[in-house]
This record gives sequence, C-alpha cells and structure tokens, in this order.
Amino acid sequence: MSIYTALTVPTQFVEANGICFAYRRFGKKAGVPLLFFMHFTGTMDHWDPALTDGFAQDREVILFNNAGISSSSGEVPTSIEEMAQHAAAFIDALGVKNLDALGFSLGGLIAQQFTIDRPDLVRKLILVGTGPRSGEGMASLTPEAQEIFGAKYDPADELWLRVFFTPSKQSQAAGRKYLERQRARKQNRDPLSNEKVAPAQVAALQKWGAPAKDPYAYLKKITQPTLVVNGSNDVIVYTVNSFILQQNLPNAQLILYPDSNHGAQYQYPELFVEHVTQFLKG
Amino acid sequence: MSIYTALTVPTQFVEANGICFAYRRFGKKAGVPLLFFMHFTGTMDHWDPALTDGFAQDREVILFNNAGISSSSGEVPTSIEEMAQHAAAFIDALGVKNLDALGFSLGGLIAQQFTIDRPDLVRKLILVGTGPRSGEGMASLTPEAQEIFGAKYDPADELWLRVFFTPSKQSQAAGRKYLERQRARKQNRDPLSNEKVAPAQVAALQKWGAPAKDPYAYLKKITQPTLVVNGSNDVIVYTVNSFILQQNLPNAQLILYPDSNHGAQYQYPELFVEHVTQFLKG
Repeated sequence: MSIYTALTVPTQFVEANGICFAYRRFGKKAGVPLLFFMHFTGTMDHWDPALTDGFAQDREVILFNNAGISSSSGEVPTSIEEMAQHAAAFIDALGVKNLDALGFSLGGLIAQQFTIDRPDLVRKLILVGTGPRSGEGMASLTPEAQEIFGAKYDPADELWLRVFFTPSKQSQAAGRKYLERQRARKQNRDPLSNEKVAPAQVAALQKWGAPAKDPYAYLKKITQPTLVVNGSNDVIVYTVNSFILQQNLPNAQLILYPDSNHGAQYQYPELFVEHVTQFLKG
Repeated sequence: MSIYTALTVPTQFVEANGICFAYRRFGKKAGVPLLFFMHFTGTMDHWDPALTDGFAQDREVILFNNAGISSSSGEVPTSIEEMAQHAAAFIDALGVKNLDALGFSLGGLIAQQFTIDRPDLVRKLILVGTGPRSGEGMASLTPEAQEIFGAKYDPADELWLRVFFTPSKQSQAAGRKYLERQRARKQNRDPLSNEKVAPAQVAALQKWGAPAKDPYAYLKKITQPTLVVNGSNDVIVYTVNSFILQQNLPNAQLILYPDSNHGAQYQYPELFVEHVTQFLKG
C-alpha cells in the first residue's frame, strides 16, 4: 500500500517532447495502473479524492496535467489529437506499458483518441460524461454550458455546483460535499489554469464536435472493453451522447445514474468506485 | 437459509379472485422478498437458476405463473392492467406487504402497472428488456420478433437462443449455457403455456404499445428507485426503450451490457446479480 493519499501525494515531474509534465502517482502497487484524463480547464486537484483514494485501494492511480495546464509546461494544443499525443509521450516517459484509462468530459475525448493511437497501452477504458465525434450538441459548447461557464461565482469554485450537479436539493447537497473533498488538499495544490487554456480547449472541442459524414465509424477501432458512465441529465455533454457511444463501441457497457448532471461520478462516488472496480476486475 | 434451490423448490398454490395461482418461494428469509414477473409465453421454469439462486442467497425469491399461464388456472387477460390486478390479488393472498419487483419484457410492463396500482407494496423496481407505453417499435411485435417467434426450432427451446442472445459466437455460447441451466430442473417442471396464451398476451402488448399522446407522462408516477437493464442490441424490445424509460422515470439508473440482445441478464448472470444486489442494498 502506498503511504500517500490524494491529499498528501507529492507532485512529480517528468520530461517528454520538451514538455515538463506534472503528475501524481499513488496507490497499491498491483496490477494495471489507472490513468486519469481531466476535464475542461481542470487540474489534478479537480479530481475527487473519494474516487482517486477509492481506486488507490486496489491499484496505482496516475493523475497528470497535460501540456500547458497548470504546473505542466508547454502550450495547450488546439486539437484532441495533439493532446492525445502529449499524453502518450508522458506515459512513455514514465515507462508504463499497460494501463486502464479513465477520461472525463474533454478528457474522455482525449482518452478515446489515446486508445486509438496506442491500443498497445490500453487494457480497459472508462468514459465519463463524454461523447463521440460529432455528438449531439457538441459542435460548440451547449447553450447551458455557455451560460454556466459565463456566469460569476463567489467563491469561484462554486461554478462546479452547476457544471456537475442538477438543481435538485439532493444533487446540490452532494455537490457541496464534493467541493469540500476537492478543497481538502491544502498543501502543494496545483495553480489554476491560466487564461490561455480555455480558448485552446474550446477550439479542440469544436473540431472534435464538428459535423462529419458517418461520424461514429471511428468507434469501431476501440475494441477494448469500455465502460461508459454519465448522469441522467447532463447539460454539458448531453446524456444521449453516452448512449450513442455505447451503441457504437464494439464492447461497451453503459451506466446512467438518476437525478444527475455532468458530474454523476462525484454525486455517487462510492457506487461509481464499486461499478468501475467491478468492471476493471472482470 | 432455505433448504430449497431453483431446481428443488416445490410448486405451491394459493387462491385469489377465483384463480388458483401456482408459485415457488425460496431463499433466505431476510428483508424484502423479490417478486419476478415473467416474459411472453414463459413459465416459472424459464427463469435462469443462476439468477434466482443467486438472489436467493440474500433474500426470498417469489416466482409465479399469472392467470391462465401453465400450472395456474384462469384465463390470460388481454390487457396489462388486468394482468397487474391478478398479480396484486396473488400477492395479497400470500400476505406479502412489501417487496422488490423484477419484471422482464412483458413482465416489465406488468411490473410498471403493478407499481403504479400498488405503490404501497413496492420498495424498489427492476425493469429488464422492457419499455414504456407507446415505446419505439412496440405497437406490434417487432419485425425481428415476428420472424424469430414464427420460425421452427428443434429442440423447440432453442427458440430462446435467438430471442435472448445475439448471433455472436460469445453470445450464442452463453445462450447454450443458459439453456442448460434452464433445463436442469427435471422434476415437477411447469407445463408449457397452451395455445391461448400467446394471442392474449400479444393483444395486451399491442394495447400497451399503441401510439398515444404524451405517452411517457405516466412514468412520473413511479417514484420508487428503479434499475433499468438491457442488452446493447435488443431486437425484441428495442434497446432505446430502456434509455427512454431511464430518461422519463423520476429515479432510475440504467445499465446496458455489451454484445447482447433481449436476455442480457442471462448472458452475464453473475454481473447482473451483482448489479441488482448492489442496487437493492443501496
């Protein structure tokens, strides 16, 4: 068992492709590590410790900031393909030869591309709150996302109460608990993403989401067992995109949770850890 | 722990509404029993022992033949509403005051109606391979179902290899194992349904599936926690109907399994028992 938890694990650095990648690696040194791909504008500190510590009971967990994000150097590229290439360079620099990948939202797009580029590396794939190329409402930020990301919050991180949770009392209460967990790391937190991150990531999202002919055909290339997870009412990447992923991936299971938005896995962290653990052991 | 298993539990009888209902009840006498609602033309022997014995480890399992089916007396009614009323009369006659309900296919329609009629009885609901009123392709048997149920099989129960499983090698191999399990009870099997069952059940299915205005509004009446489960490629009750159920039920989780048809729960029996057990304990 690792002596570190999500709150205490130090940030380490590794260089690849001229970029100094910040990462954190902890958990039980057994089996295949689980690599996390972060969402729009997020840093390593945006992962819920209930998830990362939960998974770290059984396996190594690897968090990282991709190029240009927070404590990593370099520039954020404007395509998912380049983001996936950076991630592969990072993993090669770590010397990891086999992993399970969990991508959330924007991170789910990168995880798909990463799996297609480097099928040798990926044993199983978990896609959370994400969608396919040319998915429904993915040609730009959804109207709901534009409104939510455009508003002001005090404190600023209450943004995530609206991005990740539904307006229901139960969901908002779960959101407050997520914020507490996410704020609990006090030392050596990641700096927030700078002002160049969001525009580059939006450009990448829009290229991925642009209408195309036969847009879901590429999913046939992902033959790894895949678990697709989302909330019932995701207004950031519409829930139907998770159904489309499952219907077009060759070997995918879908789980949708009740009364939940883009961050269903943070609303039901124990259940999510159980479901993913079950999927990874199978 | 009950001394009986799915293979040895005797058929018992109870009278209600002038009908003599055949049922089997076994498993651990703890907590809330789990009541099973059977599919089109099926009898108690069509339940997979891997499921019923799996659930019986933790709870009582109640199987029954509804009115006019197999070893139960009476006539099969031509509406889901009347089938649900018969089921409620049966449960009242047993004196059961609180249960979890699992309905498969036609049984899922009856379980929905039963829950709406008798919310006092139902704690949690599991809907497998089923759909909402006026669901997609539910105004009649689907073209695939008409072809599959219209063909001849030797032995006759190989019908279920096509109804419940996909054509893939893996799915068909799982189907053969299901058939072995389902055939394993040798003594005191239920007689097969007579020739009056299918036409009456089809009439009931068609009334349920007929187009209607605002057809999914009734689902708001089912406030119990609900788990919706289906295969990725259900050709009998199209998979999208499970997504529609989840999207319109107030408190529903959805699980879709990969490479599977109408009988996904028989293809992945251990995983299904784990998922449902998790849901029931929550």
